[in-house]
Amino acid sequence: MATPGAETKKPGNHNDFVQLCNPHVAAMKEDVLYHFSLSTGTHDFPTMFGDVKFVCVGGSSSRMKAFSKYVAVELGLDHPGADYPNICEGTDRYAMFKVGPVLLVSHGMGIPSIAIMLHELIKLLYHARCSGVTLIRIGTSGGIGLEPGSVVITRQAVDACFKQELEQIVLGKRVVRNTHLDERLVQELVRCSTDLGEFPTVVGNTMCTLDFYEGQGRLDGALCSYSEKDKQEYLRAAYEAGIRNIEMESTVFAAICNACGLRAAVVCVTLLNRLEGDQISSPHEVLAEYQQRPQRLVAHFIKKCLAAA
Amino acid sequence: MATPGAETKKPGNHNDFVQLCNPHVAAMKEDVLYHFSLSTGTHDFPTMFGDVKFVCVGGSSSRMKAFSKYVAVELGLDHPGADYPNICEGTDRYAMFKVGPVLLVSHGMGIPSIAIMLHELIKLLYHARCSGVTLIRIGTSGGIGLEPGSVVITRQAVDACFKQELEQIVLGKRVVRNTHLDERLVQELVRCSTDLGEFPTVVGNTMCTLDFYEGQGRLDGALCSYSEKDKQEYLRAAYEAGIRNIEMESTVFAAICNACGLRAAVVCVTLLNRLEGDQISSPHEVLAEYQQRPQRLVAHFIKKCLAAA
Repeated sequence: MATPGAETKKPGNHNDFVQLCNPHVAAMKEDVLYHFSLSTGTHDFPTMFGDVKFVCVGGSSSRMKAFSKYVAVELGLDHPGADYPNICEGTDRYAMFKVGPVLLVSHGMGIPSIAIMLHELIKLLYHARCSGVTLIRIGTSGGIGLEPGSVVITRQAVDACFKQELEQIVLGKRVVRNTHLDERLVQELVRCSTDLGEFPTVVGNTMCTLDFYEGQGRLDGALCSYSEKDKQEYLRAAYEAGIRNIEMESTVFAAICNACGLRAAVVCVTLLNRLEGDQISSPHEVLAEYQQRPQRLVAHFIKKCLAAA
Repeated sequence: MATPGAETKKPGNHNDFVQLCNPHVAAMKEDVLYHFSLSTGTHDFPTMFGDVKFVCVGGSSSRMKAFSKYVAVELGLDHPGADYPNICEGTDRYAMFKVGPVLLVSHGMGIPSIAIMLHELIKLLYHARCSGVTLIRIGTSGGIGLEPGSVVITRQAVDACFKQELEQIVLGKRVVRNTHLDERLVQELVRCSTDLGEFPTVVGNTMCTLDFYEGQGRLDGALCSYSEKDKQEYLRAAYEAGIRNIEMESTVFAAICNACGLRAAVVCVTLLNRLEGDQISSPHEVLAEYQQRPQRLVAHFIKKCLAAA
């Protein structure tokens, strides 16, 4: 079992080059980032990505495309004829857009899907010789005890047993990584939300599960062997443990960024209050507005950082 | 801990209606299948899906779209003006197509992503009052000791410790489900491959991991703390355990289908031999042809079943 935190570099020291915790990659002649349909043999990574300072990742490709347009407007980079094409157009696994120093990448749903993306993304940043990069996951989630539409900035990413760790199987053996996130970045994001004053924002723990139905205690999956009472007990225990929302990517996002010394944050909007139900049934336009909230917060943060630089 | 197999119905008895192992759903007034952007309140499931007998699922949405066109041609359903639109066009989470009695659905990458899809798919089949349904996952995988391009029909889906089970956390407690697949269906698919005689096909165990890089013993991720020798030992032990390929969805696919009494199979092509390398670097057209092999096999199987019906 790995010592928790053994791989952790100094958080906050984010002005250095992106490093890999893998001695094998430096010896490779070519690196094919298969799920991005990009390769160091065919693409000039330093020229394409060398100026990246912020990476925003989120589940849905169409949402990341919309976010890239919004970021372009917010950063004053949008002008007639400006085009932000999908850099990963050779594959439908992920979509990637670049707007000035901001890279925007979709990651699909769940720990395995975002993990594949992060391995290839961090290698991309390494090959491009990027420095001082901040990664932010924006997403949707189920809330616990919060008004739908509330934004949660994650303090601790925890697993389905409320532990601040990620268990992985490597070569058949159990490895546990800690899911530390940067507290200073949390506070900066809180200040940004206060600046905006547009929607309720809280700092809380985020539970990351491997399943959306049984794994989050829903009663509406194809399988369910527990009662409403069992579910309420579990969700209330989660609330007692400081958990304010549930999603499916935060632990591995935190663990991988942490292991690679990258400053990282998770900002999710809640689409429903799980204490009151399981189904996401709000009208499309309400959900669409909710989903823009993390984007508005994070775009404001990036603008503020760039203005201060 | 659940008793392995406790939820299993008689395999082979697949002429009955699709059932749910969840008493709560029958009591719901409306069921919103959020990730499909479909709802029993707005869509007539029996009319839309009541005749479905085969469901093919695969990771990539563009591949499933291409497969739907191929199935239409093979079943003689393609004609000028025939249109097979994406039934889930209201979302970019999954794509779904229907060609006669065949439903084709993308599932993204990894256990959580396919699990969300399966919960909603099985509820869809239940609401539509489908009967005698067979589910087949087609996909890509890393091979062990096989020529790239070989097709593997899964006998047992096993986890990263080579165990024929899926561990899940439900309400914070460990639940273990067995990953039984239908042996008779395996043999029918083998006969179809022999009929075709187009590519090498083997029956073997399939390892399902939560991670593509460290989880599959790759040396080329952003993180790696083991040597080539460690990796070879792990992969050779997998080979000794009867494992012929590695992918990221088979255990939960088998476990959920099994728990719901659905006849299911997994057919994947191998894109590389993991004993010889980690990177998928074959030319695009070679990979494209490999990826069609499970489609050709499964389309032949469906045609044969329909001819015999």
